[in-house]
Amino acid sequence: MTGRLNGRRVAILGGGLIGVSWAALFYHHGADVTLWDPSETARADANARMQKPLAHLATLDDDSATLGHLNITADLAQALDGAELIQENAPESIPLKHDLFAQVEALADPSTVIASSTSALTWSELAPGLADPSRLITAHPFNPPHLVPLVELYGVDPDRLDRAEQIYLAADRVPVRLRKDATGHIANRLASALWREAVHLVADGIADVEDVDAALVNGPGLRWSVLGAHMAYHLGGGDGGLAAYLAHLGPSQERRWSTLGNPTLSSDVQAQLVAGVSREAAGRDIATLENARDAALIAALKARKSAPGV
Amino acid sequence: MTGRLNGRRVAILGGGLIGVSWAALFYHHGADVTLWDPSETARADANARMQKPLAHLATLDDDSATLGHLNITADLAQALDGAELIQENAPESIPLKHDLFAQVEALADPSTVIASSTSALTWSELAPGLADPSRLITAHPFNPPHLVPLVELYGVDPDRLDRAEQIYLAADRVPVRLRKDATGHIANRLASALWREAVHLVADGIADVEDVDAALVNGPGLRWSVLGAHMAYHLGGGDGGLAAYLAHLGPSQERRWSTLGNPTLSSDVQAQLVAGVSREAAGRDIATLENARDAALIAALKARKSAPGV
Repeated sequence: MTGRLNGRRVAILGGGLIGVSWAALFYHHGADVTLWDPSETARADANARMQKPLAHLATLDDDSATLGHLNITADLAQALDGAELIQENAPESIPLKHDLFAQVEALADPSTVIASSTSALTWSELAPGLADPSRLITAHPFNPPHLVPLVELYGVDPDRLDRAEQIYLAADRVPVRLRKDATGHIANRLASALWREAVHLVADGIADVEDVDAALVNGPGLRWSVLGAHMAYHLGGGDGGLAAYLAHLGPSQERRWSTLGNPTLSSDVQAQLVAGVSREAAGRDIATLENARDAALIAALKARKSAPGV
Repeated sequence: MTGRLNGRRVAILGGGLIGVSWAALFYHHGADVTLWDPSETARADANARMQKPLAHLATLDDDSATLGHLNITADLAQALDGAELIQENAPESIPLKHDLFAQVEALADPSTVIASSTSALTWSELAPGLADPSRLITAHPFNPPHLVPLVELYGVDPDRLDRAEQIYLAADRVPVRLRKDATGHIANRLASALWREAVHLVADGIADVEDVDAALVNGPGLRWSVLGAHMAYHLGGGDGGLAAYLAHLGPSQERRWSTLGNPTLSSDVQAQLVAGVSREAAGRDIATLENARDAALIAALKARKSAPGV
């Protein structure tokens, strides 16, 4: 459903891959988007780089679009003027982000939400960059942000979290809140835990890279696209649900945890992983693989509209 | 595509949830299926319990069905007669399975593949039950087997593995091979690794059960339904692919691995998990949740036909 953000102003700071994807998303949903980037090169082709995300969003939404407005600028004050939400996507450097937040804090309306897309850094690491840290939240999207619905939120001001959440919801995102600041938020901690075992399976010679990936995509990955890990065990417990599962199989899960691997990314392991992914890619370049990913994500999201899962 | 197994005979040993799902799958694809169960109760309603899986499969396949034949029996010799594949789904007890394999070995044609659906046990634990262990393979499906395509294979006879693989492929499964026997095969090791961190996030107070599940379903779960974990990092490396990712972010992944949790399923943690899943279920009983899961799996599998992912 487009047009739900008509008349609302969103500032996007940083016109890289993530910034352009956010800009397309909010623009598609009717917002007045100002995209700020200090790099002339980034500004010059930002509009062109928005076209693919916009085409994805048009494919995904069946109703007729009421697009917003887009302004690309090098003037930070102009970018922030009237913005309800400032979505920051600067490089993952604490000093660089601290410096940017100081400039933003001096220019933006005090009520505005300053939301960082940071993946690698935490709220606690970024907050010292602001005189009033309550103005900052982390709002981590999952790549690509215009397709994958998740936005992970953490901050200390409930009112700002509520207001940001409403904007993300209006842009068809699924905001999820952390109760406590954590490196990797929720999703990248889960992804990292799974990948550690995926690397172990290869390093230990249990399975090849491409077979580990095929097992994931055709097994738990498919299932986790329709129900969560906790809910999956609830359904694994029969009529007694998760309580029955834990009583019956909790001890065997704890035993299995103790057998999981703890690999290191040695040069040998790295070479195995790179060779395996190369076999799996089978000559397809990154752009071709990304296009296959995006087409499949769009099809999966459309399927979800008719059958939303658990 | 149904009917590809016309004239081929498959024996299903054990008519519980998994056995009935396998029976429906092979029957739908045209096989002559004999379902053996020593329990009169299980035999009496096996046909009725096959109707839901069969309805799912009819929804999933657009072409007109050429169903097979189904025979439900308490006579093991009759069940095994002429079978190319024997799919065993007995309870997860080593002595019980050893005893069953001894009976099967005495009755079945020596060339037949004896495939165990075992989830908790390994080939190495089951093989001592046979005079000729090369007759046994493990062929672990992911629940529910008639919908989730993965079948994980391990065995020591390449010819038997090839023949089993051809039958699973003809039934629209995605067989994946282990190079080495491993507890939990591939997929349940990955699932267990992810769930350990999912439990940690709750136990450590970082996020609530329902928010961990929502983050998974709307983030990495969705993505892993279209591309594997290794491939995801290949696309995370830009034009340089996985090699560039590992050079740039390998060290930060290793640091993150060291911060992942190592929870125990204490009674407090179990209570938190059960309460959280109950909030997430929001009054829906297990059957309602299963129906939502199955409808979403069917929609996702249909979407995959048009856009198969990476």
